[in-house]
Amino acid sequence: MHEQISHLGSLVGTWRGRGNGIYPTIPSFAYLEEVTFGHVGKPFLAYTQKTRDAETDLPLHAEAGYLRPDGVDRAEFVVAQPSGIVEVLHGSVSTADGLLTLQLTTSSVTVTNTAKEVTAVRRTLTVNGDEMAYQVDMAAVGQPMQRHLEATLLRVKT
Amino acid sequence: MHEQISHLGSLVGTWRGRGNGIYPTIPSFAYLEEVTFGHVGKPFLAYTQKTRDAETDLPLHAEAGYLRPDGVDRAEFVVAQPSGIVEVLHGSVSTADGLLTLQLTTSSVTVTNTAKEVTAVRRTLTVNGDEMAYQVDMAAVGQPMQRHLEATLLRVKT
Repeated sequence: MHEQISHLGSLVGTWRGRGNGIYPTIPSFAYLEEVTFGHVGKPFLAYTQKTRDAETDLPLHAEAGYLRPDGVDRAEFVVAQPSGIVEVLHGSVSTADGLLTLQLTTSSVTVTNTAKEVTAVRRTLTVNGDEMAYQVDMAAVGQPMQRHLEATLLRVKT
Repeated sequence: MHEQISHLGSLVGTWRGRGNGIYPTIPSFAYLEEVTFGHVGKPFLAYTQKTRDAETDLPLHAEAGYLRPDGVDRAEFVVAQPSGIVEVLHGSVSTADGLLTLQLTTSSVTVTNTAKEVTAVRRTLTVNGDEMAYQVDMAAVGQPMQRHLEATLLRVKT
């Protein structure tokens, strides 16, 4: 692993778990999720995410992107989504008390012509041993920033 | 496959081949590449790309994103790159003469704080049976739009 991402090493692996989605404009939903963070020896982590509906098992969401350290206490994150949305996020990295915590906020969200309007996204992610928890807050379709997703995952492969 | 992407079906699979990169600000380079286009029954294709240096075999570039049809003759493409760049592209889809041709141009390129400046990207991709060819033109780091990448790949898995 590249030394510039060694403090992010606890993210690496395949993670599986369950999450819940809420938003004023849609029915609430529960989902099953798989997340991967991988590296190829370069100073970034590759990220993929896929969810399925917890009831029907049908594919729900997906996203892919890359996490780039900016020193040891800041990070940048770029994410593309099949809903026609790309996010560029910046924020803090903390490794206090054996926990890894990322708190990232979009500096820009850009969407395709036919996508829904998303104004801003805040992503918080914590790794504690083999458990990952994240929350996603979102301002979209005229609604103010608020909780959209939260999930807890367990590492199933390193 | 979702009926809204059936005209893009010839993209689906794993593709391998070689490409060349040029740009006024960097030494020219040759690369080995693997591209995948996959689907999960929803109206988009998931895209991944990885390259390795043709001489050293070390990882070079990667990107991931999603291709979204807008009717049968237009498409949208969102791409994230580990270099801290996200692209949103729009353009045309042609299926004339048994060839599939995509001609996509960025409506926006957004970069992270520590990334290099990229102003615009033009991506042309043609599928002819089991052969894929693409060209990437780029305006970046003060240089005008010009050829950056071209590659020819063969389908190795459907």
